[in-house]
Amino acid sequence: MAVLARNAKARVGILGASGYTGAELLRMLLRHPRVEIAVLTADRKAGQAMADVFPQFAPFALPQLVAIDSIDWAREKLDVVFCALPHGTTQTVITDLMAKAPQTRIVDLSADFRLSDPEAYARWYGHAHQALDLQKDAVYGLSEMYRKDIRQARLVANPGCYTTSGQLPVIPLLKAKAIETDPIVIDAKSGVTGAGRAAKEANLFTEVSEGFHAYGVGHHRHMAELDQEFSKAAGKAVVPTFTPHLLPMNRGILSTIYVRCRKGRTPEDLHAILAKTYAKEPFVHVMLFGQTPQTRHVRGSNMTMIGVAADRQPGRAILVSALDNLVKGASGQAIQNMNIVLGLPETTGIDQIALFP
Amino acid sequence: MAVLARNAKARVGILGASGYTGAELLRMLLRHPRVEIAVLTADRKAGQAMADVFPQFAPFALPQLVAIDSIDWAREKLDVVFCALPHGTTQTVITDLMAKAPQTRIVDLSADFRLSDPEAYARWYGHAHQALDLQKDAVYGLSEMYRKDIRQARLVANPGCYTTSGQLPVIPLLKAKAIETDPIVIDAKSGVTGAGRAAKEANLFTEVSEGFHAYGVGHHRHMAELDQEFSKAAGKAVVPTFTPHLLPMNRGILSTIYVRCRKGRTPEDLHAILAKTYAKEPFVHVMLFGQTPQTRHVRGSNMTMIGVAADRQPGRAILVSALDNLVKGASGQAIQNMNIVLGLPETTGIDQIALFP
Amino acid sequence: MAVLARNAKARVGILGASGYTGAELLRMLLRHPRVEIAVLTADRKAGQAMADVFPQFAPFALPQLVAIDSIDWAREKLDVVFCALPHGTTQTVITDLMAKAPQTRIVDLSADFRLSDPEAYARWYGHAHQALDLQKDAVYGLSEMYRKDIRQARLVANPGCYTTSGQLPVIPLLKAKAIETDPIVIDAKSGVTGAGRAAKEANLFTEVSEGFHAYGVGHHRHMAELDQEFSKAAGKAVVPTFTPHLLPMNRGILSTIYVRCRKGRTPEDLHAILAKTYAKEPFVHVMLFGQTPQTRHVRGSNMTMIGVAADRQPGRAILVSALDNLVKGASGQAIQNMNIVLGLPETTGIDQIALFP
Amino acid sequence: MAVLARNAKARVGILGASGYTGAELLRMLLRHPRVEIAVLTADRKAGQAMADVFPQFAPFALPQLVAIDSIDWAREKLDVVFCALPHGTTQTVITDLMAKAPQTRIVDLSADFRLSDPEAYARWYGHAHQALDLQKDAVYGLSEMYRKDIRQARLVANPGCYTTSGQLPVIPLLKAKAIETDPIVIDAKSGVTGAGRAAKEANLFTEVSEGFHAYGVGHHRHMAELDQEFSKAAGKAVVPTFTPHLLPMNRGILSTIYVRCRKGRTPEDLHAILAKTYAKEPFVHVMLFGQTPQTRHVRGSNMTMIGVAADRQPGRAILVSALDNLVKGASGQAIQNMNIVLGLPETTGIDQIALFP
Repeated sequence: MAVLARNAKARVGILGASGYTGAELLRMLLRHPRVEIAVLTADRKAGQAMADVFPQFAPFALPQLVAIDSIDWAREKLDVVFCALPHGTTQTVITDLMAKAPQTRIVDLSADFRLSDPEAYARWYGHAHQALDLQKDAVYGLSEMYRKDIRQARLVANPGCYTTSGQLPVIPLLKAKAIETDPIVIDAKSGVTGAGRAAKEANLFTEVSEGFHAYGVGHHRHMAELDQEFSKAAGKAVVPTFTPHLLPMNRGILSTIYVRCRKGRTPEDLHAILAKTYAKEPFVHVMLFGQTPQTRHVRGSNMTMIGVAADRQPGRAILVSALDNLVKGASGQAIQNMNIVLGLPETTGIDQIALFP
Repeated sequence: MAVLARNAKARVGILGASGYTGAELLRMLLRHPRVEIAVLTADRKAGQAMADVFPQFAPFALPQLVAIDSIDWAREKLDVVFCALPHGTTQTVITDLMAKAPQTRIVDLSADFRLSDPEAYARWYGHAHQALDLQKDAVYGLSEMYRKDIRQARLVANPGCYTTSGQLPVIPLLKAKAIETDPIVIDAKSGVTGAGRAAKEANLFTEVSEGFHAYGVGHHRHMAELDQEFSKAAGKAVVPTFTPHLLPMNRGILSTIYVRCRKGRTPEDLHAILAKTYAKEPFVHVMLFGQTPQTRHVRGSNMTMIGVAADRQPGRAILVSALDNLVKGASGQAIQNMNIVLGLPETTGIDQIALFP
Repeated sequence: MAVLARNAKARVGILGASGYTGAELLRMLLRHPRVEIAVLTADRKAGQAMADVFPQFAPFALPQLVAIDSIDWAREKLDVVFCALPHGTTQTVITDLMAKAPQTRIVDLSADFRLSDPEAYARWYGHAHQALDLQKDAVYGLSEMYRKDIRQARLVANPGCYTTSGQLPVIPLLKAKAIETDPIVIDAKSGVTGAGRAAKEANLFTEVSEGFHAYGVGHHRHMAELDQEFSKAAGKAVVPTFTPHLLPMNRGILSTIYVRCRKGRTPEDLHAILAKTYAKEPFVHVMLFGQTPQTRHVRGSNMTMIGVAADRQPGRAILVSALDNLVKGASGQAIQNMNIVLGLPETTGIDQIALFP
Repeated sequence: MAVLARNAKARVGILGASGYTGAELLRMLLRHPRVEIAVLTADRKAGQAMADVFPQFAPFALPQLVAIDSIDWAREKLDVVFCALPHGTTQTVITDLMAKAPQTRIVDLSADFRLSDPEAYARWYGHAHQALDLQKDAVYGLSEMYRKDIRQARLVANPGCYTTSGQLPVIPLLKAKAIETDPIVIDAKSGVTGAGRAAKEANLFTEVSEGFHAYGVGHHRHMAELDQEFSKAAGKAVVPTFTPHLLPMNRGILSTIYVRCRKGRTPEDLHAILAKTYAKEPFVHVMLFGQTPQTRHVRGSNMTMIGVAADRQPGRAILVSALDNLVKGASGQAIQNMNIVLGLPETTGIDQIALFP
């Protein structure tokens, strides 16, 4: 496919701009040198200014929020659309958009196009997929693993935040057949922004602060995405254990991952594999053996930090990964994928350094 | 041993009253109907009032903080001493105290007397134990498991907060031979009060808030205590995996524990064993099968809440326990042990309900 | 009026038990030696157990939540009802209750009966009061100021949290004519529990944590209550400036209050007046001159701490008060008022010490 | 003075790189297109890598941390030095540096050169100034007010965070003689990063979280800076009231400022003056009349947001300003001043948008 002309700016739309991933896209895209913000949608807040919804944008000239239905996709001639809509509406909107604007390329931040197997989709989501034709053309957007395919894709299915955090440390080890496929225990902890901006009692400050809990114990939709990618990497069915937890903080996912080395492999070998795999990656940093990361050191950045340590019992290893769920776990990786699609350097506009403290 | 006379008040001392566990002991003991606070020590703050160190005690008449060396143990005739001193000083202080005041009974909140095997102590702490005579008389103070022994003990070794959180859900299952002894993965997360009041950069607000990390990965002293008690319960050597993490909040430990059912056992069986074990315990509440607890619902209380859930793969189960590290994980259980020692109802003075929100 | 018979337990109802002030009432009343919880209402959660709404109550046997309409007030023969309902519904419910159960005494935690002037009520709330007959019989429930009237009252209008925090330090100074009536600037900061449990976007963790803001600047309903009580104390119209702010924490109000000494009075004089006024009060602690309080030292307790300091410019003084908005600012003072009404010692059941850290 | 040559990069040093303002300078300067990081000092951590001190810099090639004494200022030929050292050491270091490297221009983030009156300095700091010669050449670095002077300055005294937050809304009103000079009450609240990285008990997570308090009540060094600038703007002595408070969050200062309009002026007039003053300023945003800002909407950005509201009593107005204490309150404004000094567009490298949520 054609890429962005020299010095040209891509005309970009954000669907669902009033949510946190929408705002986060805008935060970075406003400083992206090759992007022009052309369209912002927010169905329930149509007619408002972005500054009414997120006051930090008050100093910037931005298009008004509009309803999706009011957009003439053909006329807008958008180069790229980020789709940050809730599960369910996404399939219909994208089907319509792709029919009317075949040149527009889409990065979808929902879970709708991540599962390639329609049966798995139906099983985990409780209903048949509504856009099966598109689903088979969708490319799974874990940038470091699939950038060749992403370059050609019309529709990129941006990975989930939890699963990105689990995949980056584990996939290379499964590919190298360096670890057993069972047990793999992913104990994952996420900041509250992962829950979005919907006004639910469970996400009130008073219900979240000064406390901690697990949820979806034993059964959580993100497992489907892990199963798919882990099994693909291992060449056989892998069924990891995965438990998400809610942290009393805004941003960040830390996954503590318990694995067993295959015979003849040591925790140091696992570290060497990861270090080599990511040696040239701008957004994955493998720490020295034995060191493990903190979410605060990736806050607001697109970086993933990975640590590998030996458990005291030979053969058992512990992997720890940290990323910002709104950046590498959502909007940052989405822009990384846009950069790939447009033929731009992958780091363009998303090279901010973590905000700590 | 003799217990407290009818309606009498026990004369109680707190060594290390200027730390968090000291303050927490005082918070509860000031409302304990059978206790008189006779001695408060704080070596570096000797001469100050407790209100200078913890202003919430300003409205109360309390003994001044004194140095330990200034106390005449024989003359004070204390019934019970809580020892909330740092590791290292404890052994000497208690040796001296027990020699001079043989009637005084001690609840030690440090780790010094928890390990019954001197070799294990030396291996984990890097030096020989300084009070081996006492160590063999010390009773491990997990109240629900050892109350008969505690009743007779002169020296109670109060368990660690992490290990209490790991033992209460796992010990009954090991005793019942209902789970495999390997793998047992304890992914534990603690609030910052567990780190005490020492002024260290790593515990500054700015270094802890809005972030999350693991520490002591692969090797942490609390493992020794888990090994000892798990092995005793299982009747064979057990070497669990244990990873502590630091939560951006004050109080609470949540442990997510991954186990495998032994052949013929189901996660529901595990739940039934725990529910039966703790049916009459005032400070352990087993939730309905599939429900899991939150630390906020035990904040400030001596309660431990335990949940059991099935993982999606048959035979894999997930246990979650929540307690307040300063209460059931330290000062609350210490008072519970004092109540046992004194022949009082176990809940006396420690029946406060959790402070939520 | 008759008070509680010796050793008898009062039959108590909580209307609106599923909110934070409801839960907080229950936390303390469950440990109150002279109370039996007879009725718990929660219209939208009728039929549920209290443990479904607040899991910390799971270990306790409690009446099921019921709808208010389902209660037969005459038959229930409640001694005391705490009304923790939202503004608006309160007037109707209390009118009905008082008609059907004339013996029942009511502590109302809403704002509905705090203003004695119907015109002020109409001006601030935008509609006429619906229960004018009751309003004139209502006693304003700032315990330290009105305990004689409260003892006789059928209906106690429990003060607001912000206004309690402003009144306790200022009222004695106005009565003593020790400060100018203008300017009085009350810069007040509250934890999020003050906003209740309603699921609103503005109260999400993500919208409240790691940030701070003022609200209701220049115009806020609580001003009416301050105007009323300040003017009464001063014997002339007082119109203070009051600005509320939202703190990223659960509990606590800190008010920083800027006043001017009247000619011949010094900041030290103000301190002396407050120290004398509250010398024997169990729930108001005046610190040494120059010291100022922290909210964390009153968390979970019914205590108010007050500090007085001199500004560097002669004649200007700064008062600081700290209380827990859910305890002395709501449920704790409500129980204090119940104790007064029932002729019990005022501290019964509400003498918990602050939970810090 | 000469400015930076076209396309050239300035050689920059950061003294005190291991503190928070040092790290914050580096976060922004690493993405500044016209800067090369040449020197990083940290006396107590000399020999370490920046990544050992702040792991977020691990992926970047940076000079090792060195001791200040080891630097040959003449040979380094630095264009700009940021001095982020504690009070006290600064005067000596800068005297030495300016003597040996007369071309180097300095932005000092300490308080050492902010007061132009040596007597005021001695009075507030308790000792005579050690570099009086330099002090008289220092230019006060509130960028929006003094950019002409800053352009020529060898030594820029970067303003304090609290005082920047107080000056930006008040100075234009004093200059316009639109408000009374008494009372001016500045009730200021700051995040904890303002306290720096020193390991002090008072700044522990456990001592700061879930609570709030005032400090330095009635007497705080920052008053000197406010007095100086307010008096200069008003053309007569102004002695504002100022109370700092500590918020349980990392970043952000919100100042609520209570003023009185001079006869004939209204709160709306105050708003108009501020709106006009800052209409073209990239880093000061005046909100619509009646709206007030939140710190979270400036987090991580160099923006200051200002709101003006009318109090209910005619003539009384309330100003609210919000900024990030580490950015516009320290390192961001320091880079803004460097840009002015070097003749670069003022926004270069510091145009990041706030990180919210």
